[in-house]
Amino acid sequence: MGGDHGPAVVLPALLAVIERRPDVRFLLFGRAEEVEPVLKGLPRLAGLSEFHHCDVSVRMDDKPSQALRQGRWKSSMWRAIEAVKNGDADVCISAGNTGALMAMSKFCLRPMANIERPAIAALWPTLRSECVVLDVGANIGADAGQLVGYAILGAAMAHSIFQLDRPAVGLLNVGVEEIKGQEDVKEAGRMLREAQLPSMDYRGFVEGDDIAKGTVDVVVTEGFSGNIALKTAEGTARQIAEYLRDAMSRTLLARIGYFFAQNAFRRLREKLDVRKINGGVFLGLNGIVVKSHGGADQEGFAAAVDLGYDMARRRLIDTIREQLEHFHERQPVPVDTLVANGGTNAS
Amino acid sequence: MGGDHGPAVVLPALLAVIERRPDVRFLLFGRAEEVEPVLKGLPRLAGLSEFHHCDVSVRMDDKPSQALRQGRWKSSMWRAIEAVKNGDADVCISAGNTGALMAMSKFCLRPMANIERPAIAALWPTLRSECVVLDVGANIGADAGQLVGYAILGAAMAHSIFQLDRPAVGLLNVGVEEIKGQEDVKEAGRMLREAQLPSMDYRGFVEGDDIAKGTVDVVVTEGFSGNIALKTAEGTARQIAEYLRDAMSRTLLARIGYFFAQNAFRRLREKLDVRKINGGVFLGLNGIVVKSHGGADQEGFAAAVDLGYDMARRRLIDTIREQLEHFHERQPVPVDTLVANGGTNAS
Repeated sequence: MGGDHGPAVVLPALLAVIERRPDVRFLLFGRAEEVEPVLKGLPRLAGLSEFHHCDVSVRMDDKPSQALRQGRWKSSMWRAIEAVKNGDADVCISAGNTGALMAMSKFCLRPMANIERPAIAALWPTLRSECVVLDVGANIGADAGQLVGYAILGAAMAHSIFQLDRPAVGLLNVGVEEIKGQEDVKEAGRMLREAQLPSMDYRGFVEGDDIAKGTVDVVVTEGFSGNIALKTAEGTARQIAEYLRDAMSRTLLARIGYFFAQNAFRRLREKLDVRKINGGVFLGLNGIVVKSHGGADQEGFAAAVDLGYDMARRRLIDTIREQLEHFHERQPVPVDTLVANGGTNAS
Repeated sequence: MGGDHGPAVVLPALLAVIERRPDVRFLLFGRAEEVEPVLKGLPRLAGLSEFHHCDVSVRMDDKPSQALRQGRWKSSMWRAIEAVKNGDADVCISAGNTGALMAMSKFCLRPMANIERPAIAALWPTLRSECVVLDVGANIGADAGQLVGYAILGAAMAHSIFQLDRPAVGLLNVGVEEIKGQEDVKEAGRMLREAQLPSMDYRGFVEGDDIAKGTVDVVVTEGFSGNIALKTAEGTARQIAEYLRDAMSRTLLARIGYFFAQNAFRRLREKLDVRKINGGVFLGLNGIVVKSHGGADQEGFAAAVDLGYDMARRRLIDTIREQLEHFHERQPVPVDTLVANGGTNAS
């Protein structure tokens, strides 16, 4: 029901997923009067889906607390998440209200053992390929133990979607030396270096421009600066696309050049389309929830479903559980309290 | 002496400034054996300059504390800053080591009354024109009072370079509602709203993508997230330039298109050149110091000198002093302690 376009975009998007991943099956939750007319026109999808009518749907502008109060147990968003909790579904995908989706996901699926706060991970295109950046806004602030938790979650996600044995992990920091503050980032770096986790190749601090360079596979930061980095990059991409449009229409020669190179420009435009940077993944809960961009078109929504499918297929949740257990066997204190005792290995 | 190219770029750059601002005069500080050979080839510049030989020059990789220990009183960097302190110069411009320049500037010029920490302000190109973003890395963390101080400093800079009576000011925040944390940003917003300063039009919170949009003239944030935003935007600009280069060389048609539109591409490349985003301005000290990008070419360094000239000509320091006094007459406590008493107007 969510997103700017609702079932009209979400349902046709699923056809593309069926082509690429023929063993996929769907549970659809929404209002019958909106879903059924679209579903009737897509018999192939209808044959692979089970539709559940829900009276309530969360609006894009509902506050999280309001959505939780009005939509718990019965809204389409809640019931999609609940299907993951009950084991009826392997992954929940929604283009709906991010705050409401996170609030309901936390309430229904609950954080994993040893994880105090879930994170939102973004898949970020880089000059080398893609990287996972987290947290991009689930929480404001993170102590060293929480940053270490994000590193474990992000490395597990990179493992499952990039199929890397030991993804390279960096902590986002500023490059100025001898500067005070951000003790939590320094402490998290010390903890990750000392832990020498087999599941990741911890590479130390990275700076803002390292994200686009693809210096590492996983960039770890707390949600405030992560959200600002993500939105700033989106804004810069739109700004440059606008400059390009302007430059290519200004003179006759430029317009002729544009005519010849139009396929190249189309490919470039697709690369610059921030709606394609899809797949905010909620990590650290007992189940996988993928938040598709609200403005996603069919292709964008299908990409989010593909992402969710791949993470479920490669058993992301099991990987995370194993790696958290592994870390805590060696450091038998909750991640989030490690700061207090200086992160010493008490085993 | 600073930057990647030293006198070979810095001195010819000054000729361009002389053309545009004919009443400019220069005090040059550096090692005679490096400066004099270049200066001899530029008689017009030599006629408008006074050269001072300095035995010591700060290296690009010196740590700030090391530079201060070895270069205080005698290095070219120190003496250029000291010329501002003594009133011999109106502004100091350097392409040298940022950390050393800030450490020496703080030590020599001292923070202004009511300003605990100076900030580094960046001039950021936007879809509408340019905006001032500060702090981009002088300090990590800022309380509400310091953020209010940054807003006053940034508004004064925008006033002096964009010639705006009441620049629009925004506080950088994340858009997620009902999220905990960043109380300092919220408190700073409350203080700015209540203060109703005549020198700025406070517009509330802005998000990362508002910087490129040009939603406001001044974006206020603490140095960690500001530095990450700046570097992320630089990285994104380089990434897209690389995509563009790749797209335009991939097929014969694209190469033909590139041939016709090459002037348009040159203009675009200039817009994307992060070295042109020049002018890290140290604000909040008793004197103006402009940090040019170390990799700046002649044009880039000249732009930094122009910026410094314009701020001095339009009496930036006097404007800042007046506005700080104005704020503190109405709120007779130091900006940095306003948080403690809730920012109440005690006059």
